[in-house]
Amino acid sequence: MSSSTITRVLLNNYVPSGNAKISDFQIVQAPVPTSEQLKENEVILRPLYFSVDPYQRNRLSGAKESYIPMYERGQPISNFLVATVVASTTGEFREGDLVLDSNGKWETEYITGAGAIKKAPVYPGIDPRDYVGVLSMPSFTAYVGVTAVAEPKAGETILVSSASGAVGQMVVQLAKARGLRVVGVAGSDDKIEYLKSIGADTAFNYKTCGDLEEAVKRAAPEGIDIYFDGVGGELLDAALANINVFARIVVCGAITQYNLSSVEERYGVKNTLNILVKSARMQGFTIGRYFGTKIQDEFVEQVSKLYHEGKIKYRVTETVGLENGAQAILNLFEGKNFGKSVIKA
Amino acid sequence: MSSSTITRVLLNNYVPSGNAKISDFQIVQAPVPTSEQLKENEVILRPLYFSVDPYQRNRLSGAKESYIPMYERGQPISNFLVATVVASTTGEFREGDLVLDSNGKWETEYITGAGAIKKAPVYPGIDPRDYVGVLSMPSFTAYVGVTAVAEPKAGETILVSSASGAVGQMVVQLAKARGLRVVGVAGSDDKIEYLKSIGADTAFNYKTCGDLEEAVKRAAPEGIDIYFDGVGGELLDAALANINVFARIVVCGAITQYNLSSVEERYGVKNTLNILVKSARMQGFTIGRYFGTKIQDEFVEQVSKLYHEGKIKYRVTETVGLENGAQAILNLFEGKNFGKSVIKA
Repeated sequence: MSSSTITRVLLNNYVPSGNAKISDFQIVQAPVPTSEQLKENEVILRPLYFSVDPYQRNRLSGAKESYIPMYERGQPISNFLVATVVASTTGEFREGDLVLDSNGKWETEYITGAGAIKKAPVYPGIDPRDYVGVLSMPSFTAYVGVTAVAEPKAGETILVSSASGAVGQMVVQLAKARGLRVVGVAGSDDKIEYLKSIGADTAFNYKTCGDLEEAVKRAAPEGIDIYFDGVGGELLDAALANINVFARIVVCGAITQYNLSSVEERYGVKNTLNILVKSARMQGFTIGRYFGTKIQDEFVEQVSKLYHEGKIKYRVTETVGLENGAQAILNLFEGKNFGKSVIKA
Repeated sequence: MSSSTITRVLLNNYVPSGNAKISDFQIVQAPVPTSEQLKENEVILRPLYFSVDPYQRNRLSGAKESYIPMYERGQPISNFLVATVVASTTGEFREGDLVLDSNGKWETEYITGAGAIKKAPVYPGIDPRDYVGVLSMPSFTAYVGVTAVAEPKAGETILVSSASGAVGQMVVQLAKARGLRVVGVAGSDDKIEYLKSIGADTAFNYKTCGDLEEAVKRAAPEGIDIYFDGVGGELLDAALANINVFARIVVCGAITQYNLSSVEERYGVKNTLNILVKSARMQGFTIGRYFGTKIQDEFVEQVSKLYHEGKIKYRVTETVGLENGAQAILNLFEGKNFGKSVIKA
């Protein structure tokens, strides 16, 4: 990393639909940036850990209309990361400072403006990796979804899709901490075991359970009060078929639908009628609008406390070396990961 | 009506799906109830006007699971009505009192308990028909949907389905009164003209507009902030395709989906992904839970004021004679009505 070149992960081609391929990215070497190149109020950052997240699929699509900016062809992929300052022309940051960049470049060193980063808050016993792990965006997404959007009451039943994923595993544990009955859904038997080990009351494998609607019914014979939806499609429909009166469907992802090339290919949801019949509420949210609000402080305080007390477990899949960054993205979309995906620089 | 027999409208057969037929009902004559038959705390009522409402379709279905009780075979249809007391064994009601029965029988005279009815509130210049008209359940539904569920802001755009129907025409006018841009959707050209006459900024005929998604886009090029959904299906999908960030989809009916016999026949909604992408909220509600709450007083006060000042127009389709009651229900489901449907006894 502090060799004579840096590694960069560039976008080669947009991937409007279907699976991305390694060749859609380009891994290149470039000269190490030097402090002579810095203008005023700039820093050179050396990332320690890069966050890898499902929402990046959308940024790869090249879609003209989207809720987030597309990556640019020939330019580096970017995402939330934690880094060390190696040089600075601002009094605000000094060499050695640990900082967070919400849209940092996938480069082993890069120059950015001081306005784009902030110091990593200090918590007892925290590992820099925690910033892209237990305290990163997916956890914050889980926290907002469970608390502000779902408005759970103790004793209710929550169904969690992608329950072993970065958002899901946190949803499971936060819901459990609030006294809910938790039903997890995931795609392999060891994920199911993991879910039970972190407190899910029951869990099933959507690949082997047979009819989804029946599987949800078996797992939640009392019906579902909250469905935490990260996948859309058929599981959403099966969940809707099993909701109770005043149910809340929290929509924070639709990973089964992102890869499709046209509206026609999308799964048609048949059970929206139940939103009426059950006086239910289906609410989408993106985490961006909650950044910098009071709930973020509450999240950091509560979750880091629960984590350091050992009351929240958090699983990370770590890819070592940014030169493997493109593969880390592909693994995420192929469901190969377990827990939150990060790249160690 | 005060002849030697009364008319009753009985359910002959449940109609799980498809269109009901006249023969699914039975119109019979029966002896006039007499005051000798009254037990303590009972009244004989003579209905003046019967309300006819879309939700009755569900009560005819015989479905085992529903949010409202089914009608019983061989027993009279029932619904909200306004009646005169013709005999009473309770001090609470006297002969000649005008009363409301939220689930009164479709009989030209009948006996009921005093606990099932309440006195019609007195408003200046009100006609008894107004209780099943401008101040009836569909209007209350519109009021709750527009105010409490949609939470509109002046300048926003609302798309209203079934806009010339009992709920829709009130939604259009209440939204207009709150400074919204209103786009109406209905199924005939004279309904479209009517919508413009009551203040819709624009309106289109869903039967002749061509591609629905495009039609919504033409009518609301600035996008939709609120969709008031009484139909479900294809128009819901077209609306979802055109929503703005933070849109609210108010689901108060799904008339296109009620008549289907199985989940498989239901329209599959493709654009639920936009609930995520646009951070939208889709909320179902049934009016029952708002009865007797503060918002009901607010509704009666505001809407009767607007109506008597001439600021709200309200169209009623009146069927004369309870012997035509079954036909009135069929007309409602075949889209033959214009405005709120009532039967004059």
